[in-house]
Amino acid sequence: MTSSNSKPPKRLSEFALIAKLFAPLAAKAEGAFGLTDDAATVRLAPGQELVVTVDALVEGVHFLNSDPAGAIAKKALRVNLSDLAAKGAEPRGYLLALSLPDWVDNDWLTRFASGLGEDQERYGIDLLGGDTTSTPGPLTLSITAMGPVPEGQMLRRAGAKPGDLVFVSGTIGDAGAGLALLKGEGAGLPMNERESLIARYRLPEPRTALGPLLLGIASAALDVSDGLMADLGHIAEVSGVRVVIEAPRIPLSSGLVTLWGKGAGAVARAVTSGDDYEIAFTAPESARAGLVAAARESGVPVHEIGRVEKGAGVVLLDEEGAPIPINRPGYTHF
Amino acid sequence: MTSSNSKPPKRLSEFALIAKLFAPLAAKAEGAFGLTDDAATVRLAPGQELVVTVDALVEGVHFLNSDPAGAIAKKALRVNLSDLAAKGAEPRGYLLALSLPDWVDNDWLTRFASGLGEDQERYGIDLLGGDTTSTPGPLTLSITAMGPVPEGQMLRRAGAKPGDLVFVSGTIGDAGAGLALLKGEGAGLPMNERESLIARYRLPEPRTALGPLLLGIASAALDVSDGLMADLGHIAEVSGVRVVIEAPRIPLSSGLVTLWGKGAGAVARAVTSGDDYEIAFTAPESARAGLVAAARESGVPVHEIGRVEKGAGVVLLDEEGAPIPINRPGYTHF
Repeated sequence: MTSSNSKPPKRLSEFALIAKLFAPLAAKAEGAFGLTDDAATVRLAPGQELVVTVDALVEGVHFLNSDPAGAIAKKALRVNLSDLAAKGAEPRGYLLALSLPDWVDNDWLTRFASGLGEDQERYGIDLLGGDTTSTPGPLTLSITAMGPVPEGQMLRRAGAKPGDLVFVSGTIGDAGAGLALLKGEGAGLPMNERESLIARYRLPEPRTALGPLLLGIASAALDVSDGLMADLGHIAEVSGVRVVIEAPRIPLSSGLVTLWGKGAGAVARAVTSGDDYEIAFTAPESARAGLVAAARESGVPVHEIGRVEKGAGVVLLDEEGAPIPINRPGYTHF
Repeated sequence: MTSSNSKPPKRLSEFALIAKLFAPLAAKAEGAFGLTDDAATVRLAPGQELVVTVDALVEGVHFLNSDPAGAIAKKALRVNLSDLAAKGAEPRGYLLALSLPDWVDNDWLTRFASGLGEDQERYGIDLLGGDTTSTPGPLTLSITAMGPVPEGQMLRRAGAKPGDLVFVSGTIGDAGAGLALLKGEGAGLPMNERESLIARYRLPEPRTALGPLLLGIASAALDVSDGLMADLGHIAEVSGVRVVIEAPRIPLSSGLVTLWGKGAGAVARAVTSGDDYEIAFTAPESARAGLVAAARESGVPVHEIGRVEKGAGVVLLDEEGAPIPINRPGYTHF
């Protein structure tokens, strides 16, 4: 773990900070050397390869500085765990690059590290190393997460074939509904449903138990972060196929149905809101039995929502089989 | 490669940007999947393990927005390559997390990618993936670099033993002298020496050719980024030893000597300024012959500068063997 700063000391010294808060997070990882070195090592069993992924989160873009420090830590870790899960990888370790503005104090760092520690326990991943710097701007952090898969088996966006079926884990649109509630919609919604939707927005639940069980079953997979339509669009594009999904089969939570109903408009909204962090994947019909077993073993519900055809793009059909127009498939990227 | 942004499109669309500028940087890396996926894979040969390291750079802390985009790219890559080299690892691949403020335009991104491409060629490393986001603050980037070493062979900060000798590659203090010139010192210095010192400050030259040759030779190693005294202090602390270095043996460039002379004051300044990106290491006396061969094979000069003793801390001795007082061993960390 390294750090750099051109300013006079304000917080705990670098080494005290690392030793006190972060070294315990690396204590179980053999290649982390207790964060006393500049780099970490990762070993693989014979026949494995390492899946690596990085996500950056920026204050004011992905979270607010009023969000609890522990929740920011967990969200940063979980969006990466979701990527690993959708690629079929077991979580192993992560590197943390942290750019800290002046308002971050030792208490904040303590709560941040505590959030990481809780999720490390929950998901079975260890801190391997990192870098801390100061920043004159917003708190910015990036996490590089890694975990093994059998060689050549990583679930990719490419690989969906005409005739495959389309599946998604959990329920879709809850995070979008949670955000809508925070923006003032649905004032009359019962408190338990309200809290459950907002929780889905605030803290993703990466499907780490399901992902690795999809190896050898799924033909293509990704995690749903931009919106189901947009993300299935990535599979369609990279696989060179058309994805057809059926609105009545999109899994909606009871809270979302109470808020938005279950008509075409509600489904269209659910499949175009982001931050679901479910796994969307395709698989041949012959994989159905294996899938049922994987869903049961992981405890994660899986729903069949459509099929793969020749062609391009993604289409959402209503119960009559007519396309539901979608203006904006998901998050706007630059 | 993924991206997220809550703002309306301003630059090339995400996918156009990635396809046009970054995908060519990943074209040779088998596990990068042309940046069409959410994650990359890394394979190791039997008996290898992967060294991973991350460094973040922040506009206004590590570089200025007036710096050339290509130089920012190269510096970000090279500080990571320097870490890999000092750990004995061959450069293999890297992930790039990029948080872009509004002032970054397509022209800037083009020059940034071009800088990365030049250094990829130079150092034999490939882009494996990354993440782009917007930021309301300073340009912030983090690079996670990785490369293989034989299992258990990574050069660590721990491992220096009493009786070992202390070595450093290249020359020390040039980057600090370059920075001093930029701040107005040495107005009369000849132009070629001036430019050479400033170049050392602006663009590190990671010792990637030397590092892997130190496997089996060095007992402890790290790259000199905080200042030689401070960094040898890390080795002393983690190895549980005392490091004694001799001022007359510290390698100084002719430019630095012209600027600062070669007295105790000049050396004290050289060994406490940062950004050298040389490799400092310890090795048993029996390794001298191997070292001469490694220096010759890599084309990187290596100098013996001191010895390891029982005890703690780092001391700099003058030609009489008396300690030279050091007020501040290197960069101030928070």
